[in-house]
Amino acid sequence: MFQEYDLTTFYRLLHPRPVAVITSTCGEGKVNAMACSWFTPVSEEPPTIAVVVDESSYTAECIELMGEFALNILPSELLNKIWVAGSRSGRNVDKIRAMDVNLIKCSKINSYAISESIAYIEVSKVVSYGIGGSKVFFGEVVAAYVKDDVAGNYGWKLDKVSIPLHDWGRKFYVLDKNAKYTYIRDVRS
Amino acid sequence: MFQEYDLTTFYRLLHPRPVAVITSTCGEGKVNAMACSWFTPVSEEPPTIAVVVDESSYTAECIELMGEFALNILPSELLNKIWVAGSRSGRNVDKIRAMDVNLIKCSKINSYAISESIAYIEVSKVVSYGIGGSKVFFGEVVAAYVKDDVAGNYGWKLDKVSIPLHDWGRKFYVLDKNAKYTYIRDVRS
Repeated sequence: MFQEYDLTTFYRLLHPRPVAVITSTCGEGKVNAMACSWFTPVSEEPPTIAVVVDESSYTAECIELMGEFALNILPSELLNKIWVAGSRSGRNVDKIRAMDVNLIKCSKINSYAISESIAYIEVSKVVSYGIGGSKVFFGEVVAAYVKDDVAGNYGWKLDKVSIPLHDWGRKFYVLDKNAKYTYIRDVRS
Repeated sequence: MFQEYDLTTFYRLLHPRPVAVITSTCGEGKVNAMACSWFTPVSEEPPTIAVVVDESSYTAECIELMGEFALNILPSELLNKIWVAGSRSGRNVDKIRAMDVNLIKCSKINSYAISESIAYIEVSKVVSYGIGGSKVFFGEVVAAYVKDDVAGNYGWKLDKVSIPLHDWGRKFYVLDKNAKYTYIRDVRS
């Protein structure tokens, strides 16, 4: 039978979910990075995404100021770097240096992506929406890049790359070539 | 090196991701269901979620009218039912009957959840935001339930239940007791 679940942790029922690193540029040109798994595609046309960040974060301040950001997908092998991006504040630390990653100039926005990513998207024309202690940033996806041949039209090629999913705290699931999958068949639709 | 990725399918880089079934009630009391993987937690306090649905869908019409809905997590074994919920329109079909599931009355909203779920949350005080052909519904999580002992404070117990993740089309990944996971260790944070 059903039991009540603590409302303050309801979101754990919506994990594991993809995790990405948001890169943004602040007024003085400093590039900041932050881990994020609270995001969702919003629209195919125009291609739109929403990301949720803490309203008090340096990333929120940077995106609010510049109106654009990049969303980087890093492979499972770089989970330690994702963790660094998610566990310090860019107000106090140069997170690009702390993560020990390199930057690549974006093509359509005035910011940078992470060279070690397996894919990144560039997001522009951002509008924000405040709820509780969070800022939801909606933005148009103006460019998308994937490394080498790690994703086709239908998504990731898990024989070539492995994808991290955030569960909670320090726990992550890893989708790789051994991940279990299934196809829906024999159902009229 | 990086290659451009088709903007019209950018969202496939943000999958696989959790999939749920939204249940909503329409004016005449009819209960409708729809599969959805474009959702995200938004805030811990107040507990808030955002779900994205096609603006022309029957579900969008129902949520707009009633201002509330339930979000049901079904186990991997019921993927065929999730598929039915995602591949027909409630305008033409009684999807609860087509899915062959039972309903349970919600406690805090005037709607129903799916008895075969492993967890469901009740969402109220919904506000909508239109982008492209999509409607984003923000709502407060007013109740959450899990079945038996399938989730603890830290999320799913994969020794007791298996979770589906939607990749694309008919392809789903399945997280079960054999899923690969890792803990971040030895990183200063």
